[in-house]
Amino acid sequence: MDIVALIDHVLQRALDDHCQAGSPPRLAAAIRHSVFPGGARIRPRLCLAVAMACDDDQPALSQAAAAAIELLHCASLVHDDLPCFDDAPLRRGQASVHVAYGERLAVLAGDALIVLAFQLVAEAAEAAPLRAATLLRTLAQGVGVPFGIVAGQAWECEPQVALRDYQRAKTGALFAAATMAGAEAAGAPAEPWRALGECLGEAYQVADDIRDVVSDPAALGKPVGQDQALGRPSWVSDWGLVASVKRFQELVDRAIASVPDCRGQGALQALVRLEAERLVPQSLRSNLVREAA
Amino acid sequence: MDIVALIDHVLQRALDDHCQAGSPPRLAAAIRHSVFPGGARIRPRLCLAVAMACDDDQPALSQAAAAAIELLHCASLVHDDLPCFDDAPLRRGQASVHVAYGERLAVLAGDALIVLAFQLVAEAAEAAPLRAATLLRTLAQGVGVPFGIVAGQAWECEPQVALRDYQRAKTGALFAAATMAGAEAAGAPAEPWRALGECLGEAYQVADDIRDVVSDPAALGKPVGQDQALGRPSWVSDWGLVASVKRFQELVDRAIASVPDCRGQGALQALVRLEAERLVPQSLRSNLVREAA
Repeated sequence: MDIVALIDHVLQRALDDHCQAGSPPRLAAAIRHSVFPGGARIRPRLCLAVAMACDDDQPALSQAAAAAIELLHCASLVHDDLPCFDDAPLRRGQASVHVAYGERLAVLAGDALIVLAFQLVAEAAEAAPLRAATLLRTLAQGVGVPFGIVAGQAWECEPQVALRDYQRAKTGALFAAATMAGAEAAGAPAEPWRALGECLGEAYQVADDIRDVVSDPAALGKPVGQDQALGRPSWVSDWGLVASVKRFQELVDRAIASVPDCRGQGALQALVRLEAERLVPQSLRSNLVREAA
Repeated sequence: MDIVALIDHVLQRALDDHCQAGSPPRLAAAIRHSVFPGGARIRPRLCLAVAMACDDDQPALSQAAAAAIELLHCASLVHDDLPCFDDAPLRRGQASVHVAYGERLAVLAGDALIVLAFQLVAEAAEAAPLRAATLLRTLAQGVGVPFGIVAGQAWECEPQVALRDYQRAKTGALFAAATMAGAEAAGAPAEPWRALGECLGEAYQVADDIRDVVSDPAALGKPVGQDQALGRPSWVSDWGLVASVKRFQELVDRAIASVPDCRGQGALQALVRLEAERLVPQSLRSNLVREAA
């Protein structure tokens, strides 16, 4: 089974098991709308790829971890889109959750997704409960305070923030949790996998800032020009487009170099290259740098 | 140490460890405002009382469970108070979180509290990881879909709901999680403790409905008349005041009778009686029933 199909299957089963019989029907629908159709599922793909590279011997646990990472990501998107934050009408090419189901169900769907993320890992814990406990701490650190994505979002409510701190928390933390949780699910030490997640997370954020300026909303599935409109810290507004493209390239190179020596090293490096191409195609990178020269 | 002081100490330490150095300062303040000053801390008290009654041999785990239960409760209050739900100006005698810190930080504080709840238990897992995994599942069931407090809140967004289903999810679920998690932390079977939590949860909800009609806001620390103002399902509006008082008494009696045979049985039954007196004093119960006769 293709890896995105596997992730979608695990997510589907999780929603079927927990959000159907007995649930308030509109909440169940809002939760499903938050998770399907998916985006690139890059975080859970990374998580599973690292687990496989570490000779994954507990696939139930690594799959639960990957699904949990994606649910936490979906929860953050739903809450970020709320009227009090970005007031975004579109997400992944469809109406955002609060537009489709109202603000109350968007708040609750996000809450339910956070809970479900931890629940899935706890349910898969029996065969390797110590690994699961370590993994749950890693997930919590990627999402909560002081350095997770919730903290990252909260930096938008402060009068001053360093761009690196903001983006490291808002995006990097969950990427780092994804690579580290993948290793932990397979019983491998997590620390050697932190750099891959952090570099990719930052690369992803820089790419997002670039795409916010150069994309059209149909291709992106969400509005463009949001960073500027919302006065958010952004690589492009701080450093300009060309420096941002160079920074992106540097982060991708560092991510590739950081992959620890293991059986799946080559496959992981190939995944990073592919993802970089999807985010900011090499042709666009070259054009932007050439035009500026 | 008095049990409420112990709970506050554990909560304080959790916030000091996780919400200080490195956190966005306003988020850290909003989180603290969500947790202190506390209410009656009845759910964590119940959790610890059950653990003690089951010969608690892992106090670090039972204390983490109790703190987690309270943090999940606080998170639900912060989100329930949001403008899109109850738009409540007051909570526990002070400005509600969104009034004091704005809507965005109220959403994020609630999210952070949910994450922190699971994190605390995962951090206390090492000495008894299998117990911790079971306990995490119990917590998730008390909060998430289909039957936890998030689902309970979501029933308010449905055109039709049975009062019992609504209240069982909105209040009963977390009370049941509190008693069951207390047993699980101590390595005891959880199921015999479910009835105590469910009866108390329902009694608490009926008491809340009664107090919404007969109290003054200063004594309650929050506005009264909210159920009617918001058109929410309520025992009193469905059944009248006298039937509600009788129902309360019946639930308290059932809770007391449900306490399993164990060393701490008498102490737990005394706690239930005390709590019932605090919720709806016996004198008020007698007066209301006498006046109606």
